[in-house]
Amino acid sequence: MVESYVVVHNVAKRHNIGTMARSATAFGVAEFILVGRRDFNSFGSHGSTPYLHFRQFHSLSETRLYLKEKDCDICGVEIVDGAIPVNHQPFKKSTAFLLGNWPLTKECEICDFFVYIPQYGCGTASLNVTVAASIVLHQFGVWAGFPERGRDGQKFTVAEKPMKLERRNYCAENAEDKMEERKFKRENASHHWFDEQNANHSSVDSQSSTLALLFEG
Amino acid sequence: MVESYVVVHNVAKRHNIGTMARSATAFGVAEFILVGRRDFNSFGSHGSTPYLHFRQFHSLSETRLYLKEKDCDICGVEIVDGAIPVNHQPFKKSTAFLLGNWPLTKECEICDFFVYIPQYGCGTASLNVTVAASIVLHQFGVWAGFPERGRDGQKFTVAEKPMKLERRNYCAENAEDKMEERKFKRENASHHWFDEQNANHSSVDSQSSTLALLFEG
Repeated sequence: MVESYVVVHNVAKRHNIGTMARSATAFGVAEFILVGRRDFNSFGSHGSTPYLHFRQFHSLSETRLYLKEKDCDICGVEIVDGAIPVNHQPFKKSTAFLLGNWPLTKECEICDFFVYIPQYGCGTASLNVTVAASIVLHQFGVWAGFPERGRDGQKFTVAEKPMKLERRNYCAENAEDKMEERKFKRENASHHWFDEQNANHSSVDSQSSTLALLFEG
Repeated sequence: MVESYVVVHNVAKRHNIGTMARSATAFGVAEFILVGRRDFNSFGSHGSTPYLHFRQFHSLSETRLYLKEKDCDICGVEIVDGAIPVNHQPFKKSTAFLLGNWPLTKECEICDFFVYIPQYGCGTASLNVTVAASIVLHQFGVWAGFPERGRDGQKFTVAEKPMKLERRNYCAENAEDKMEERKFKRENASHHWFDEQNANHSSVDSQSSTLALLFEG
């Protein structure tokens, strides 16, 4: 059975990848790998982060070693020479998708191949990185033939929240990080996403599903 | 030549659909149609909104009439009985995608068919609406065979900003809306998206590409 991974390099506190985490769990990502810094915020995750398996490495080379032990391809998501349109589904086996902070030589060096998302309009040079990640994970899931999640009415079924004991691979977090995160949450309390109606979590629930919860294990 | 449209019903001030606008222009959407309220904010659009053609209707039935005059299918993006996985690309001709505030009977009534995005994981009941919209627009573009936009190095080429005279279909905006929007911008000035590195607009440029610019014509 093939698996997908997400790899993000040197994400910073101000970087909101909550919505990317939500897409990662929706598309059945096996692990969400943070390389280098790991102090992102998870606003927009809609309570999905406790279901994700996080892992951290200090360097890209360590990350590559780990993924190669799993016989995993590493695919950069970027418009570079030789990148393949993602709708061609150029996948062969388990694949880790490297996102963000592009294009830097050291990131490119660990990639086995690249995909990009074709654009047709004249008004933007690139897509939002979470949108790009989601499209790639969608295409990979279709290629892999992952079994579709069951539904409750008009929503996909959400499992019970995982117990602490099951959350082994989560990073530790220090007090300073927690304070930063709380500050960020206060600053963004007024900033709502368009999809609130579309979830089975209350707004309060969603706001509390942060790294504090995620990393307390 | 087929075309795609985005239809959003009763979007509210607090709804940030800037990132959706950015995806809409990336995927060559012909018109972005607002039904009912039109006072959204465009944070996250990354300067793309001036390139989009906006249109407004007071009711869903007016919207349907307009789209049917263009011989356009109306496709709801929602997990309902009979909805087709979007990767099956169940398209026949120009298509308008109806998003947001689901599921309400009156929205469903104007749809000719529905698509949904398969999910595989257990941690979220649904995707962020902008992510869902982007995946659907991506699949439609692939199906339609839209010609790919040219590139400048590792980015798609952005056209020169449209002149005011060309912006005919934009809504008017009153002083109160502008004040609300400025207030929102102040509140969210500290909230950055992860993809700043990934764009050809400076952060300042991005922040200034708001409805104020959009609707001043």
